[in-house]
Amino acid sequence: MSVTRIKGPYLLFLGAVRNPLDAKTGRGLKDWRPELCLAQSRLPGCTVDLGLPDMTPAQAYAAGARSLVIGVAPLGGDVSPDWVDTLVEALEAGLDLVSGMHNRLGNVEELRQAAEQNGRTLVDIRVPPAGIPLATGKRRSGRRMLMVGTDCCVGKKYSALALHRALEQQGASTTFRATGQTGILIAGEGIPMDAVVSDFLAGAAEILSPANRSDHWDVIEGQGSLFHPAYAAVTLGLLHGSQPDALVLCHDAGREYIDDYPGFPIPPLDYCMQQYLEAARVTNRETRFIGISVNTSGLRPVERVAYLEQVRTTTGLPCADPIIDGVDSLLANLEHLT
Amino acid sequence: MSVTRIKGPYLLFLGAVRNPLDAKTGRGLKDWRPELCLAQSRLPGCTVDLGLPDMTPAQAYAAGARSLVIGVAPLGGDVSPDWVDTLVEALEAGLDLVSGMHNRLGNVEELRQAAEQNGRTLVDIRVPPAGIPLATGKRRSGRRMLMVGTDCCVGKKYSALALHRALEQQGASTTFRATGQTGILIAGEGIPMDAVVSDFLAGAAEILSPANRSDHWDVIEGQGSLFHPAYAAVTLGLLHGSQPDALVLCHDAGREYIDDYPGFPIPPLDYCMQQYLEAARVTNRETRFIGISVNTSGLRPVERVAYLEQVRTTTGLPCADPIIDGVDSLLANLEHLT
Repeated sequence: MSVTRIKGPYLLFLGAVRNPLDAKTGRGLKDWRPELCLAQSRLPGCTVDLGLPDMTPAQAYAAGARSLVIGVAPLGGDVSPDWVDTLVEALEAGLDLVSGMHNRLGNVEELRQAAEQNGRTLVDIRVPPAGIPLATGKRRSGRRMLMVGTDCCVGKKYSALALHRALEQQGASTTFRATGQTGILIAGEGIPMDAVVSDFLAGAAEILSPANRSDHWDVIEGQGSLFHPAYAAVTLGLLHGSQPDALVLCHDAGREYIDDYPGFPIPPLDYCMQQYLEAARVTNRETRFIGISVNTSGLRPVERVAYLEQVRTTTGLPCADPIIDGVDSLLANLEHLT
Repeated sequence: MSVTRIKGPYLLFLGAVRNPLDAKTGRGLKDWRPELCLAQSRLPGCTVDLGLPDMTPAQAYAAGARSLVIGVAPLGGDVSPDWVDTLVEALEAGLDLVSGMHNRLGNVEELRQAAEQNGRTLVDIRVPPAGIPLATGKRRSGRRMLMVGTDCCVGKKYSALALHRALEQQGASTTFRATGQTGILIAGEGIPMDAVVSDFLAGAAEILSPANRSDHWDVIEGQGSLFHPAYAAVTLGLLHGSQPDALVLCHDAGREYIDDYPGFPIPPLDYCMQQYLEAARVTNRETRFIGISVNTSGLRPVERVAYLEQVRTTTGLPCADPIIDGVDSLLANLEHLT
């Protein structure tokens, strides 16, 4: 599960995706570990472009790549049959395969055989560690900040990474805690929360951010949304086990409905915050929101300023687009947390 | 996963438990499938008594038993080392072993070997079916009633079974849907929700109660509690996937704190109901509570009447102890549901 098992640099495989949200694993790696991202591999029909040179597996190997990382996360998390030829080609070219899919790479017979025949490794980062305990609910020392979302794919991982970096630049003692496959690839460790057996979800969140020195901040990547018809359970288990002192609400200003679930409207932000606080009270009655992180890429500049100002006014909290505005404003209230 | 694989009648194994709540699997089988329960097997120190004759595995086999069912569900769901001698003795006596523990019986080397040497079967009912899909959130035909609790072990399964039986006696088309190991042993099928990988929890709940004729009622056994620091995620996934038309709140009148979690008070009933309704709205905005099922075994008779009356007054809903009062009153409002 550790990136120490993953050989860089990477050829990022994007399949034939057309929705940029489906390529968030590749995008996240490119943004946060650019030194590891050598090239991209795309199938016919793929309209997403990470701005890397397109290479075949053989070209990438010759240029120094040592792993093909599956950089797309389709609904359900399965290896698509359309990918198999390219993945086998990669194994034959000398690359290991790295996947964050639910189904293990070795379950695809062609991949299992090709890896064996070519002496290559199949790396499944979406396999949780063994022996996760039940949650105790007991408070532990250290401070914790958790990203919570109005939906999936609204910038929770990006916000957490940016907040972690900003805290580091302020000289704070801080750790980024990864909860999904991309975060784990970036951080080198973590727990793929959505792959944990549900009885042990909150327990997994407890061991993900263990006791620490009292002024240490764990910045925990969020998962899903309490308002998502499929994934809310993952969100709640992570929230309860994290026992966060601080919450950051992450939202996409252009999103009205849950992604891929058109019948499911995203509730108003103040309602979302209220529900998150009520849920968080089960394990930490002192949880507070410190700010709101908004993806405003879907708005025109003039709309953007008005939108952020309106959210600031209605919530009374700092509100910023982390990509445009940075996240320093979101940390302004941190010292006032008791 | 089906009881069709389980040979009856049963020797119910209770280990050395002292807390009756830990023996709820055995108690549930005894209450709802008495014809299958031949005898009990208890280790020194066990203070729970199901009112069955105590037998050794050999005595039980001679009396006709064909399976030893592990009737206790300790925290964490592991096979205790103290049990192994008796379980091996059972395999040698000719009994199969049936378990609802998280860890598979075959993972205990002594049991694996003894089963192989004696030609016996190890039956793990807490193994979810393969290929569970992601939740779609789409509404499906038929009506659904879900038990939700203020805590674990407050009578959700008993209430669901009693409501199912009452509906049957009224001539309704109805199915009991089991979500835990005891329920699955009783019903002969179901999905062990707490063993499902968390990404697929709501999807599992969707396939557990599939589309049905419009006047059919699925009565769904609940799991855990939204207010439980370890298990709330299971509760939420089941709630979202079930898309219930009707909720029944289950509560133990003598319980002030979450069982085994003394620092965690159970919130007031009206707060619990409010939180369940808010959570349910994600997939069904028409969800309503139809009544409250209270375990009043910890109250004196005079307290009991006053307690139920008080809950009736504050909630405006029918309120009954299903063991003492039956559940007919809880069904009174069912026809008014739209």
